[in-house]
Amino acid sequence: MTDIARIQDFQRHVGATMKVQGWIHNKRSSGKLQFLILRDGTGFAQAVVSKAALSEEAWVSLEKAGQESSVEITGLIKEDKRAPGGFEIDVKDATVIQSTHDFPITPKDHGTAFLMENRHLWLRSERQHAVIRIRHAVIKAFRDYLDDQGFTLVDTPIFTPAACEGTTTLFGVPYFDEGTAYLTQSGQLYNEANAAAHGKVYCFGPTFRAEKSKTRRHLTEFWMLEPEMAFAHLADAFEVAQNMICFAIQRVLATKKLELERLGRDLTRLEKVKAPFPWVHYDDAIKIIREKGSKTEWGSDFGGTDETVLAESFDQPIIVHRFPSAIKAFYMEPDPTDARYSLSADILAPEGYGEIVGGGERISDPDLLLKRLHDHGLPEEAFRWYIDLRKYGSMPHAGFGLGVERFVTWICGIDHLREAIAFPRMLYRIYP
Amino acid sequence: MTDIARIQDFQRHVGATMKVQGWIHNKRSSGKLQFLILRDGTGFAQAVVSKAALSEEAWVSLEKAGQESSVEITGLIKEDKRAPGGFEIDVKDATVIQSTHDFPITPKDHGTAFLMENRHLWLRSERQHAVIRIRHAVIKAFRDYLDDQGFTLVDTPIFTPAACEGTTTLFGVPYFDEGTAYLTQSGQLYNEANAAAHGKVYCFGPTFRAEKSKTRRHLTEFWMLEPEMAFAHLADAFEVAQNMICFAIQRVLATKKLELERLGRDLTRLEKVKAPFPWVHYDDAIKIIREKGSKTEWGSDFGGTDETVLAESFDQPIIVHRFPSAIKAFYMEPDPTDARYSLSADILAPEGYGEIVGGGERISDPDLLLKRLHDHGLPEEAFRWYIDLRKYGSMPHAGFGLGVERFVTWICGIDHLREAIAFPRMLYRIYP
Repeated sequence: MTDIARIQDFQRHVGATMKVQGWIHNKRSSGKLQFLILRDGTGFAQAVVSKAALSEEAWVSLEKAGQESSVEITGLIKEDKRAPGGFEIDVKDATVIQSTHDFPITPKDHGTAFLMENRHLWLRSERQHAVIRIRHAVIKAFRDYLDDQGFTLVDTPIFTPAACEGTTTLFGVPYFDEGTAYLTQSGQLYNEANAAAHGKVYCFGPTFRAEKSKTRRHLTEFWMLEPEMAFAHLADAFEVAQNMICFAIQRVLATKKLELERLGRDLTRLEKVKAPFPWVHYDDAIKIIREKGSKTEWGSDFGGTDETVLAESFDQPIIVHRFPSAIKAFYMEPDPTDARYSLSADILAPEGYGEIVGGGERISDPDLLLKRLHDHGLPEEAFRWYIDLRKYGSMPHAGFGLGVERFVTWICGIDHLREAIAFPRMLYRIYP
Repeated sequence: MTDIARIQDFQRHVGATMKVQGWIHNKRSSGKLQFLILRDGTGFAQAVVSKAALSEEAWVSLEKAGQESSVEITGLIKEDKRAPGGFEIDVKDATVIQSTHDFPITPKDHGTAFLMENRHLWLRSERQHAVIRIRHAVIKAFRDYLDDQGFTLVDTPIFTPAACEGTTTLFGVPYFDEGTAYLTQSGQLYNEANAAAHGKVYCFGPTFRAEKSKTRRHLTEFWMLEPEMAFAHLADAFEVAQNMICFAIQRVLATKKLELERLGRDLTRLEKVKAPFPWVHYDDAIKIIREKGSKTEWGSDFGGTDETVLAESFDQPIIVHRFPSAIKAFYMEPDPTDARYSLSADILAPEGYGEIVGGGERISDPDLLLKRLHDHGLPEEAFRWYIDLRKYGSMPHAGFGLGVERFVTWICGIDHLREAIAFPRMLYRIYP
């Protein structure tokens, strides 16, 4: 039996006759030659079929097979610098597993609505394929980095009895006799309990936001990585964030260059990303954007345009820190030198990609936490367990959240979050 | 500044004076000596404090500090075979960060309801700590194994427009103007689209089942790992499952022995697990359980007791295969030699832990799939995209799902799924 070669491994099969299982991505014919672009899930490669090399039956069935037909090709793997990907298959035999016709997504342009409606098929395209592979590399890099740094993965619950930050953007789920459960917006509160048990922890799962927003920066369901560290301060948490980001970028550059190139990504921009990232105080950030024409006042959060303007002033991602306490969540530790500011920070990506990380130090004093809960009008009873964490062995602790789709969008240099996840969920989209 | 040592790394700090940041897990005092059990999230270690070595203030504050007080201890790390974990800290200095009193969970016995209500604190106990660390090692092992085998992680959606297997056990979520979205029970259908794009894929996320069940084998929210492979048959998928399980067990034995021992796990049972696992035809399985007194008839699914009885007949996990088509999901490929049987299989763990893996080959013929959809009374429109996968480049494909909590419960040798996840969700439990 001929062994199966995967396109991503062609380098090590040069000169061997191997079997490739995949799909016809594209083809053109010139009488006695057919040129196929095959894809097998790991990559794309050209296969050259000569009429003389095949049985009449195999030749005809291949000739009749349309785009996305599933095939099994046996052939000699050759190096060819001119071919896309650098290799070519000299076909010796071919079996069409399913002859496919009228595949809806052709090489011509399609509208976004059509592509989203056919997302299950669109995923096979060269660009979408590249994005998902980069996403995987990013996620693996994050996990490897944290695991190597001694973090323990502790999955936090999706069903939560209370809101982390207000209730207006929560999805509610009828939950037996227990009333309504809410889908988590963040694992952070639970992370704090886990950090008190495991020291350094992270959770990594889907989070949900019922925002009636249609911008290219919003999904209702998105994946978030949230590390949390006991006995740590704001600077400790953001050192981890910064180093983890650099590690992931290096990993993607090292292992997914082909995919980045297929997306037309400017690699020099990614290669430039290096620690340390500049720290920019909120006050200075306000000054910079106002000098550039923003109307945003001290005490407000940044808009998307502000973030773009701000990030454009720097080559590196920047760490904007010490946002006003008044615009931050109830649990944010105030700056001990000036309580108007909080020990919080965001990381803004360059090239207009905006916020990719948000985090800070959490209040460790039980009395202050209670006061803040009341100030924010939150029900003390629902947070009883959270208050316990300050009653029993409280300590300084800090963490951050990184939105996977935002990060992937930046790394890939693409426009819209919806391409950074296989099946995006948006205001008007739950199909397919 | 004295460097911080983590208890899990004490081996490499023997003879050095280091700082440990953690909590007082337990203590006893004998006049001029205090014996602390410290925990720092990575492990537990004894610290010996002599009154003579400390300032009066440090001694007194340590003496007053109750269980779970947060502390910073500086001391000499010594090897001591008699000490739990094999090391001891000879304390030179101590700072109590927060003096804690009346921690609700004391070394005495507590009822399960009380512990579950205080899950956020219970997680700090030695057994719960061990389980979560083993869970992390298991998840990392699964991911590493699949990544090394060339699988691509493709996260599948949590919000789905339709049910995968019936609608009675689905959680529904009001979703803007789109009606009801259902929380996923399985990423499998989407995996099939992803396998057609990426060849070998897996998803790994939370899944949901609204079952009004109170057994120790049920959670409403649990994590599932689901690999899916294009151009693969039943045997291919279960070879991956088997080898992945063996890999994970070896990894846990190699890296989490201390935790397994803390749980009192019989390591010889785990060491024995080796590929190949026996394949047991459904007919033979029925024969075995009926010989042992089960009343289960041919054509029925196994009950929990049947699974235990069946697994007890073997030393290894077993692969029970070819369940009757009538009791399997609509998408299961019938056995080409006898359509009464399906190309499906379950892996049953030994020692009464029951089903840990379920999977099979999926129907690849579009007409048969349509017929099955109709037979099961499922709405064709909702499955339009799924049918597309058989219209465009269909191929044999197979996969499986592995329930993380069930697997961890087995590896840890514990009784109840609720201890295999940090914040279990059950029929009457969404707090904390």
